Amino acid sequence: MTTAPSPMQTPVRIAVDCMGGDHGPSVTLPACRAFLAKHEQAELLLVGRAAELATAARWPRCTRVDATEVVQMDDPIEVALRRKKDSSMRVAIAQLKTGESGTAAADACVSAGNTGALMALARYLLKTIEGIDRPAIAYAMPNRRDAFTTVLDLGANVDCSAEHLLQFAVMGSALAAAIDGKDEPSVGLLNIGEEAIKGSETIKQAGELLRRAAESGMLNFHGNVEGNDIFKGTTDIVVCDGFVGNAVLKASEGLATMLSDFIRQEFTRTLATKLAALVALPVLNRFKARVDPRRYNGAALLGLRGLVFKSHGSADAFAFEHALERAYDAARNGLLARVHDRIHDTLQALAEAGEPPSPPNSDLTLAA
Amino acid sequence: MTTAPSPMQTPVRIAVDCMGGDHGPSVTLPACRAFLAKHEQAELLLVGRAAELATAARWPRCTRVDATEVVQMDDPIEVALRRKKDSSMRVAIAQLKTGESGTAAADACVSAGNTGALMALARYLLKTIEGIDRPAIAYAMPNRRDAFTTVLDLGANVDCSAEHLLQFAVMGSALAAAIDGKDEPSVGLLNIGEEAIKGSETIKQAGELLRRAAESGMLNFHGNVEGNDIFKGTTDIVVCDGFVGNAVLKASEGLATMLSDFIRQEFTRTLATKLAALVALPVLNRFKARVDPRRYNGAALLGLRGLVFKSHGSADAFAFEHALERAYDAARNGLLARVHDRIHDTLQALAEAGEPPSPPNSDLTLAA
Repeated sequence: MTTAPSPMQTPVRIAVDCMGGDHGPSVTLPACRAFLAKHEQAELLLVGRAAELATAARWPRCTRVDATEVVQMDDPIEVALRRKKDSSMRVAIAQLKTGESGTAAADACVSAGNTGALMALARYLLKTIEGIDRPAIAYAMPNRRDAFTTVLDLGANVDCSAEHLLQFAVMGSALAAAIDGKDEPSVGLLNIGEEAIKGSETIKQAGELLRRAAESGMLNFHGNVEGNDIFKGTTDIVVCDGFVGNAVLKASEGLATMLSDFIRQEFTRTLATKLAALVALPVLNRFKARVDPRRYNGAALLGLRGLVFKSHGSADAFAFEHALERAYDAARNGLLARVHDRIHDTLQALAEAGEPPSPPNSDLTLAA
Repeated sequence: MTTAPSPMQTPVRIAVDCMGGDHGPSVTLPACRAFLAKHEQAELLLVGRAAELATAARWPRCTRVDATEVVQMDDPIEVALRRKKDSSMRVAIAQLKTGESGTAAADACVSAGNTGALMALARYLLKTIEGIDRPAIAYAMPNRRDAFTTVLDLGANVDCSAEHLLQFAVMGSALAAAIDGKDEPSVGLLNIGEEAIKGSETIKQAGELLRRAAESGMLNFHGNVEGNDIFKGTTDIVVCDGFVGNAVLKASEGLATMLSDFIRQEFTRTLATKLAALVALPVLNRFKARVDPRRYNGAALLGLRGLVFKSHGSADAFAFEHALERAYDAARNGLLARVHDRIHDTLQALAEAGEPPSPPNSDLTLAA
């Protein structure tokens, strides 16, 4: 099936929306500097207001790309799409468009700006890859194996068909292969029980479709998984619709915040507990570092004709640097070509197996 | 609107499926004993195999009810429904049926048996309350306010209409009013964003329906909430379909397990960290007690003509006792009448406002 391209030896160029996020250049620029120090092959296009990027633009392997406007975190999508035509977000994404020369100015783009605007602009400017109906947002969540489970979609699509879920599975496989170096990453379909008979009609159909793709050798489909499997690390990838994925992601963030609040409160309750905290500090710090969400900052917008990564809006420089790392790894390992090839191969294999991927009136539907 | 009945002064009778769960009588009977010691008004119907309940049946305020079969945790629903007609689960639920005298043998029923079988049997034997299409599973999750957020549905219904979500909101309000003593508990609709325009068509319609019910004074509707609001405690109740609720609940359990594993691993890594653990032990124990899921064991199956509570299958005696507590509180505070009255009043208010709760071709649908 897909032949994995070897990592690029040529420079990797990343377009950075320096103005995006809650903190703008005060966070993005230090992150860029730290990132560049670690990656000699990396070059950055710093996109934003000239005055604010003047100093940084003189750093080695940096080029300033001017953009006079900024998409605010609370700007409606329409404002980002129709009014702020010279926004740093838009100009950064535009660097991924293939010009007349057949090459694009940048290999990937990173923004900490608002997700809705980023997805809408990316979709408008880049379009989707052939065979992909809808882009999806993929995010790596830590699991008990001290590895990551890639979950998608996380909010780009509230209503998904079985075919969309298949596309998510294929794109997620390409991402895990490119970034985590797994050749045949395993895919779980999020459901309310492990038995194939459970779940909605859409989920049952998606399970059927994923099984067919697996039979064609196109996918390593594990079967149904449940919410807890994300953190168990049962599979490398967990596929779900954007509504469920978003609810799970946000609930997890909320629970983690609550638990760390509670730990802090317990350790600061009295003088004795504060002393205990001092003694336990190195251990607590190790624990904190292990689950530090900044370490896995950077969600991938998959299915577009260009690599777009979204950093958390409230990211600090350490977190934003990790989003840059993820974009860099994805570009260096040919994620774009991998998604394209995997989707192409999967659809072809399903067609050759005489199984159209989208049977409008299949037995499956009628049997409902 | 609803007049809250004052707590029952007469004995509260709970039918206990003593054979259910992973551990059966070895857990359920000690839990019953501890529970009885705390509640002088309580009486228990101990349901199960005569031999295993012989000693317990001699305890004060206990009556043995024989049942020769046991629904296993992995029994398919069909087995529970059609084959094991003398199961402890079935007989326990049957105690809630109103006899010719107009009263039932028990006011509530508790089982740690398998959820699917429990729901199916309860639905078959008890039927739903008028105005309720589908029963829902409600569970109290801890929040940062050191209180609980009641979330429903948690898996009984994978595809829900706007009307179902309204019914969940009303039933959840009755539960929070009965158990947590809140007169007008606030309701949040789980969505992927707080703005009313976000989400699927069903969610938008549900939002509209909940707003109308709130305008009629029948519901304290807060608006849309996101996954993290469950643990923030933004609202007393969070309403969602069973697929989303189940995914969120299980992901939360998975995350909590992962984090406590990680803490344990860090504190047992070296001799130094083990010593630190000794010093920090009282603090860690306080933290552990604060988030102990056993303390909020016991999900309510709402919408049935009888109060059925489901304990976690792996519950120990401490946890099972808490499920008994929840059932006891619900029965004592007239949850059944509250659900009935609230649903009746809400549907009537919506009808009087000239707004049929289920417009087959509303503008809302057409505008999609």
